[in-house]
Amino acid sequence: MSLKPGRTILASSIAKLYLEEIKTRVAALRAAGRRAPLLVGFLANDDPASETYANWTGKTCESLGISYELRKFEDRDYLEEGIMAANGDDAVDGIMVYFPVFGNAQDQYLQQIVSREKDVEGLNLVYYQNLYHNVRWLDDARQLKSILPCTPLAVVKILEYLKIYNPLLPEGNQMYGKKCVVVNRSEIVGRPLAALLANDGAVTYSVDVNNIQKFTRGEKLKFQRHHVEDLGDNSPELLQEVCRDADVIITGVPSANYKFPTEYIPEGAACINFSSFKNFVDEEVKNKASLYVPMTGKVTIAMLLRNMLRLAENREKLAQ
Amino acid sequence: MSLKPGRTILASSIAKLYLEEIKTRVAALRAAGRRAPLLVGFLANDDPASETYANWTGKTCESLGISYELRKFEDRDYLEEGIMAANGDDAVDGIMVYFPVFGNAQDQYLQQIVSREKDVEGLNLVYYQNLYHNVRWLDDARQLKSILPCTPLAVVKILEYLKIYNPLLPEGNQMYGKKCVVVNRSEIVGRPLAALLANDGAVTYSVDVNNIQKFTRGEKLKFQRHHVEDLGDNSPELLQEVCRDADVIITGVPSANYKFPTEYIPEGAACINFSSFKNFVDEEVKNKASLYVPMTGKVTIAMLLRNMLRLAENREKLAQ
Repeated sequence: MSLKPGRTILASSIAKLYLEEIKTRVAALRAAGRRAPLLVGFLANDDPASETYANWTGKTCESLGISYELRKFEDRDYLEEGIMAANGDDAVDGIMVYFPVFGNAQDQYLQQIVSREKDVEGLNLVYYQNLYHNVRWLDDARQLKSILPCTPLAVVKILEYLKIYNPLLPEGNQMYGKKCVVVNRSEIVGRPLAALLANDGAVTYSVDVNNIQKFTRGEKLKFQRHHVEDLGDNSPELLQEVCRDADVIITGVPSANYKFPTEYIPEGAACINFSSFKNFVDEEVKNKASLYVPMTGKVTIAMLLRNMLRLAENREKLAQ
Repeated sequence: MSLKPGRTILASSIAKLYLEEIKTRVAALRAAGRRAPLLVGFLANDDPASETYANWTGKTCESLGISYELRKFEDRDYLEEGIMAANGDDAVDGIMVYFPVFGNAQDQYLQQIVSREKDVEGLNLVYYQNLYHNVRWLDDARQLKSILPCTPLAVVKILEYLKIYNPLLPEGNQMYGKKCVVVNRSEIVGRPLAALLANDGAVTYSVDVNNIQKFTRGEKLKFQRHHVEDLGDNSPELLQEVCRDADVIITGVPSANYKFPTEYIPEGAACINFSSFKNFVDEEVKNKASLYVPMTGKVTIAMLLRNMLRLAENREKLAQ
């Protein structure tokens, strides 16, 4: 039999659809006599990965008719002032900061300095709170749509593309019956992602270095939120057990050394890695997974630009 | 010579002044036919230190005519909903959460769930941003006073009590000429405290496990903020050097094993410890320090209650 068991899907193919949509919307803005939207990136580290990401973001913007400006800071102590100036500058539509800057809790402080109205990455705690509680609007009058943090959103869009979200089911329940494993429980991506999937009806096992938790929608209807249950310490046995009938395995371990054990992947599961390090063993995963998405960064950038257009629409509505 | 070189000042003596003031203000509210203010504490850990602190807060409230209610959560996953319910409950004037709950970054998320209007500890990031930028008001019309995080504020009030803040100097410059060392650079206390002291004119050396930084008001007038300079890695030599002519040494190391080296304390300096562990060697520091404040918790509670009254005033102004 030479039939290859699965397919590798590149993030660029998925991103393409969204980038086309963004390009069309930007062109419509320009046709209406408006200036090109401006995204400003703030770089205050000397991490070559940040510089690469910044350059790639710049090129993507250029191809879509969006202006991009990279503001570099030799002295990171001036970054906060730079962000505050951009917050108050009407010419700036979106702000993103390349982290780490200080590499400690001060980075979380800086993250929240970015004006909520220009926070294209969706890192403001209001957006996380809305995500956890399934709140889709920023205002009571439901005029201003909330946005989602761009990496969890990118994973959801990838699951939609892979047809794991089932469009025949009602919205908000399109993951009903699906079992997901998410290896990463950071506040930025892993925990909100597990909650998003649970809020859409999936049973999600959230794995971090210490333990494994089960996220379900549960019956917490009043606060519209997922339910979390501690299953126990992270051990090979427990991890294997929760993976046994998983439909999707999602990894995001920020380490070059970490590899998800191929033998725990059920035949025919979908595998998605959002870490910048490859968490699956490429050659092996292709023989077990039905669908494999080795990197997600390009979809994340597309979501970030999509968020920027939504935030600009909100600002416009507020100005009316 | 039997003259004892210095004096130990207990936090309770300093707190007393503020508690008297609070008692008078609460009595005035009651005399005007208003209900007693209600502070709600949220406890979702089994740390005996939290329980003790909660009990002590309850007793202090009782003695001042303030209502205090402790809400305990067996399942910490329900805490967020509990906080949100209190946020929306007009009967609740102040909310405080006993941390750690999850013991990781999720605690910072929870901290920001507390409504800014009821956050008596002043942990909302808006209050920190205002602190760093010397912003005293929450609104452009300058009707609503901002509050300060209660532990950094307690240290400032202690320095005022110790006459280290010089009331002859203009406000905002009352620490001019003073040199301070702060051993702790947490986002909650150490870094904001160093900034507060710098904003009031002091030169402050901020020490953490990695390095030593110098905070000064500098010339960052536009954004009304302190200036930070990296002096180098934390080493015994550098620490000794920055302590050489210090007027005040402030410690906040959360460890039973840490002791500030007595030999680095200049003769006649003031020493203040805000850690719940004694960071100075009691018997030794008394022979070097002019003034020694071994614990600050009671002043912190007083500041928290003071913040509560200010927030209640703000809410009243908003309701008018």
